[in-house]
Amino acid sequence: MGLNVAQKIIKGHLVKGEMIAGKEIAIKIDQTLTQDSTGTMAYLQFEALGIDKVKTKRSVAYIDHNVLQSGPENADDHLYIQTVAKKHGIYFSKPGNGICHQVNLERFGVPGDTLLGSDSHTPTGGGIGMLAMGAGGLDVAVAMGGGEYYISMPKIVKVNLIGELRDWVSAKDIILELLGRLTVKGGVGKVFEYSGDGIKTLSVPQRATITNMGAELGATTSLFPSDEVTYEFLKAQDREKDFIELKADEDAVYDEEVTIDLSELEPLVACPHSPDNVASAASLKDIKVDQVCIGSCTNSSYADMMRVAKILEGKTVNEKVSLVIAPGSKQVLNMLAKNGALATMIDAGARILESACGFCIGMGQSPATNGVSLRTSNRNFEGRSGTTSANVYLVSPEIAAVSALKGYIADPRELGEAFDIEMPKEFIINDNLILPPAVEGEDVEVVRGPNIKPFPKAKALESIVEGKVLTKVHDNITTDHIMPSNAKLLPYRSNVPYLSEYCLTPCDKDFPSKAKQYGGGFIVGGDNYGQGSSREHAALAPLYLGVKAVLAKSFARIHMANLINNGIMPLIFENEEDYNKIDTMDELLIEDTIDQVDKGIIIVKNNSKNEEYRMLLNVTDKQKKMIKVGGLLNLVKASH
Amino acid sequence: MGLNVAQKIIKGHLVKGEMIAGKEIAIKIDQTLTQDSTGTMAYLQFEALGIDKVKTKRSVAYIDHNVLQSGPENADDHLYIQTVAKKHGIYFSKPGNGICHQVNLERFGVPGDTLLGSDSHTPTGGGIGMLAMGAGGLDVAVAMGGGEYYISMPKIVKVNLIGELRDWVSAKDIILELLGRLTVKGGVGKVFEYSGDGIKTLSVPQRATITNMGAELGATTSLFPSDEVTYEFLKAQDREKDFIELKADEDAVYDEEVTIDLSELEPLVACPHSPDNVASAASLKDIKVDQVCIGSCTNSSYADMMRVAKILEGKTVNEKVSLVIAPGSKQVLNMLAKNGALATMIDAGARILESACGFCIGMGQSPATNGVSLRTSNRNFEGRSGTTSANVYLVSPEIAAVSALKGYIADPRELGEAFDIEMPKEFIINDNLILPPAVEGEDVEVVRGPNIKPFPKAKALESIVEGKVLTKVHDNITTDHIMPSNAKLLPYRSNVPYLSEYCLTPCDKDFPSKAKQYGGGFIVGGDNYGQGSSREHAALAPLYLGVKAVLAKSFARIHMANLINNGIMPLIFENEEDYNKIDTMDELLIEDTIDQVDKGIIIVKNNSKNEEYRMLLNVTDKQKKMIKVGGLLNLVKASH
Repeated sequence: MGLNVAQKIIKGHLVKGEMIAGKEIAIKIDQTLTQDSTGTMAYLQFEALGIDKVKTKRSVAYIDHNVLQSGPENADDHLYIQTVAKKHGIYFSKPGNGICHQVNLERFGVPGDTLLGSDSHTPTGGGIGMLAMGAGGLDVAVAMGGGEYYISMPKIVKVNLIGELRDWVSAKDIILELLGRLTVKGGVGKVFEYSGDGIKTLSVPQRATITNMGAELGATTSLFPSDEVTYEFLKAQDREKDFIELKADEDAVYDEEVTIDLSELEPLVACPHSPDNVASAASLKDIKVDQVCIGSCTNSSYADMMRVAKILEGKTVNEKVSLVIAPGSKQVLNMLAKNGALATMIDAGARILESACGFCIGMGQSPATNGVSLRTSNRNFEGRSGTTSANVYLVSPEIAAVSALKGYIADPRELGEAFDIEMPKEFIINDNLILPPAVEGEDVEVVRGPNIKPFPKAKALESIVEGKVLTKVHDNITTDHIMPSNAKLLPYRSNVPYLSEYCLTPCDKDFPSKAKQYGGGFIVGGDNYGQGSSREHAALAPLYLGVKAVLAKSFARIHMANLINNGIMPLIFENEEDYNKIDTMDELLIEDTIDQVDKGIIIVKNNSKNEEYRMLLNVTDKQKKMIKVGGLLNLVKASH
Repeated sequence: MGLNVAQKIIKGHLVKGEMIAGKEIAIKIDQTLTQDSTGTMAYLQFEALGIDKVKTKRSVAYIDHNVLQSGPENADDHLYIQTVAKKHGIYFSKPGNGICHQVNLERFGVPGDTLLGSDSHTPTGGGIGMLAMGAGGLDVAVAMGGGEYYISMPKIVKVNLIGELRDWVSAKDIILELLGRLTVKGGVGKVFEYSGDGIKTLSVPQRATITNMGAELGATTSLFPSDEVTYEFLKAQDREKDFIELKADEDAVYDEEVTIDLSELEPLVACPHSPDNVASAASLKDIKVDQVCIGSCTNSSYADMMRVAKILEGKTVNEKVSLVIAPGSKQVLNMLAKNGALATMIDAGARILESACGFCIGMGQSPATNGVSLRTSNRNFEGRSGTTSANVYLVSPEIAAVSALKGYIADPRELGEAFDIEMPKEFIINDNLILPPAVEGEDVEVVRGPNIKPFPKAKALESIVEGKVLTKVHDNITTDHIMPSNAKLLPYRSNVPYLSEYCLTPCDKDFPSKAKQYGGGFIVGGDNYGQGSSREHAALAPLYLGVKAVLAKSFARIHMANLINNGIMPLIFENEEDYNKIDTMDELLIEDTIDQVDKGIIIVKNNSKNEEYRMLLNVTDKQKKMIKVGGLLNLVKASH
């Protein structure tokens, strides 16, 4: 029986387990990446492992999240990461070099490699044929130390692309179509492998837009084959030596299949406040726009920017609109500066921001109160922009640019005849903002500013676990709810005690004070608890506050792993209706916890209601060990 | 007897008074400018005057301070300013169009005009031959309403420039030389008028660097004649119709004179933490640099940027240095984007930031803890960068660029042969980010977001004024000490109740709580109290907290005017030694206050020490009226 591309890469990296969907497997990791908002924690954890030098083929530390630098915390974190990277064999991408996923694609992505990144949009690398996954910082730290990465063998979904995109319809519209069909939890436990004749018409950056935003499906990852298009991209990056061909066998078998006829798609928009709330641009035409933001790891490639420049050429941004553009990398910015496209954007009245995550993570560019913002990024969760009352719509660069000119949500087909943007035959290569590590790291001194605080460490599981239900939340709670990540909090990513004061406050402003008052306790959640960003801080802050278990209808993959990595039990209601029976402040009790963890079924007693709930601990044997010893770090250290 | 240039402009605009140094005069204001951090308050005050349309020749509202937009406050303020400007006849410069002083020079500055701006660096306009002064927002509001502006007739200092700058020595070094000689209080009550053969060798932007940083001398303003150089600049801006020649009469008389031989200057640096702490670059060579920031209203012109690009060409920024460059305006950025200089900077590894005030006001780019930062801006007060422990050095763009390459403070003469940067014969003109006001403002709706709070209003003076000394501070307290202006606080410039929680906290963290506990009281200050930024908030926050008078050895001009405008008495010790006798928490009492204000001599009783101090109220008759009725707004409203 033949293999598909995902299976081929997994097979080539398999260390433990069988490739049967749902079964635990361990795979070797070739490359890692971190960004600065998760990176400080990942490197603190790496240091705790006591390993001199990373054992990966390549590990890169990027600075792209916290580059506003309002106060010393950001620069302190940058300096810590720069020096710890230099010491331990990690490449360092300086602030200004661009967004990790864009730069990784340009300079480091290798078809067939595995990539683990402490950022949920790491699947961007699937555009170049990598098996690229987001994970918590601790998993990345372990991978840097040469440890394997454990996941459930995913189901492989074949996404069959047929036909060709019509004028003014973009790669963004393909992934929005899929999100509209499958929803933000449609990808849980799955890898989306793109296939079909339609893929030939998509460049590597277009493919990367699709795999990037595949994260919003809740998927383990998404990927494309590596083909002639991939080769041309690598060659233009002066990296043809990194090319290998990767394609599914003729008789490859997939667990599921979905077909998208590209020729039927039209320009789409994800409406507030979820990436799967999809409508056609044409249907939203009466909506006035206050702000347009173009960039982010989803849509900041050279070709994206050139399309925008072409639309803006000779025009002026609507007087009521603030248009900001953040090209994705130094390479992209440099090319636009050299070929005149940047001048075209400036002429039209665009504000050019640094190549960084910026507006996508609420790091600046928060809209006015009740403002309407069109963004080319990947998430429009309520409040993520920094303005709780804002309405954020996710769109392609084409929709963004034409709407900035018109002042309302516009269908780019209004512009008439389309134009072609050629992919460059040669990108400008200048890696002088990427610093290689020291050959001998011993003499490098790691600089730790006052913002770098020790991270909380879990303790071994006790046989009786009890406490109050501190809060009860609804379905689809994101890690942005659990650990908000706005411009005011992002500088404190190395300071969990400070951050924990804001844990779950968007849902329940008293959560941190209740947790402190009652010495920790339980969280009750609905479906898809912990979707969104990979941030480990959504587990570290509850750990710091004494949370012992989260009871939910279901969990998002990365967050569930982060909870386990930090010794917090993710318990799933066997009977979903039990969710309705529990109230905040109920007293819960788990007895013989260690035995029950081994069995994978946990009886939770509700002493306030005199009830019992059967909860599933749907985890691997290795994860059970982790829960018992108090998390991954304790487990790895015990195995030394 | 002939007149100098300053006297000619004053004479042409004189409404009241005699031109005798120290006597009160009132002058007509042709143009006003505001920026966003002082502008919201200025327009709230303008609205309180009840005037439909500005009565100036031209008024412009710029957005350049609060453009990071971390949270909705900034965008709310922008929208308020945009709509209030449109309604009342004011031009609006959108975010991204650049720094107010740079844009004003390019597009609006007119030789011989008077300009009043709610920003202390308004004297930048003196580079093009304007009489350009910084003032509080209320003064600017009154000027927009057609009211005259009151000052003491300044002494006119002739700054005689002879010779020519040597290679690698810049306009910045001229003003640093003057600051080193005269100190930050050397210019109080004076206008610095540049003269001599040396001025012919200086372009308008170079002249503007000098007049800009003349603010650091404490001067009323600085200015250059309007000559052939001015004409060429205006012509290149397609504004030759705005040119008039302005020169001092042959027999003009000056109050003071100082001579600088340009050919003797060398590259200079203002060391931490004051602009007058000047040393030669060559003498500081062992100091390692962590950050270099190029831009700000002092040094962000086209020619400044071209010099930087030339130095960076083909090189790479030192690996330990973060180099950020913020061109001063859309025009400058656009020209650099078109001629390839921006690509040169990007190639070298510079981070390109938006055309705005940015790092200069601590709005981002705070250095790491204990970091060394070289900046081309004009102020290096402790903590202004956003990092209390940072050491900020003020330098020319040339020193900044070469130091970014070397990694230590470097003398640009190390580079060897110098190069010439030609001033453009034609600048790129595209004013599409400058929105003209509505022809009929009636129908324009002013949008007020939730961050726009009513400002505190002073009450009429009572005959007995008593209270505690809430705090006692040292010499040279800046408005940055009185009302800190960092990235976290700047978004609240329209929200005085919130801001007042931070009033004077850099000197005395308990000041706001003491003021609240004791229902207001007194501040005791040393020499040059209130130097630095023009921010009115340094008077509004004390007003909100119930401060009735400030007792000091001397006051900076703009801050003193702001106190009076807000009904707070600025009292000067007749006997400076009395400063030493007062302690915090002493009980002070002023009786028959109204009579004493009329006399201009105030007896302050110290009931805790059984002492009396003779204090001078060194103000004009009009200002006495203001103090009695409770500030300028009450006075203007009473006169309607």
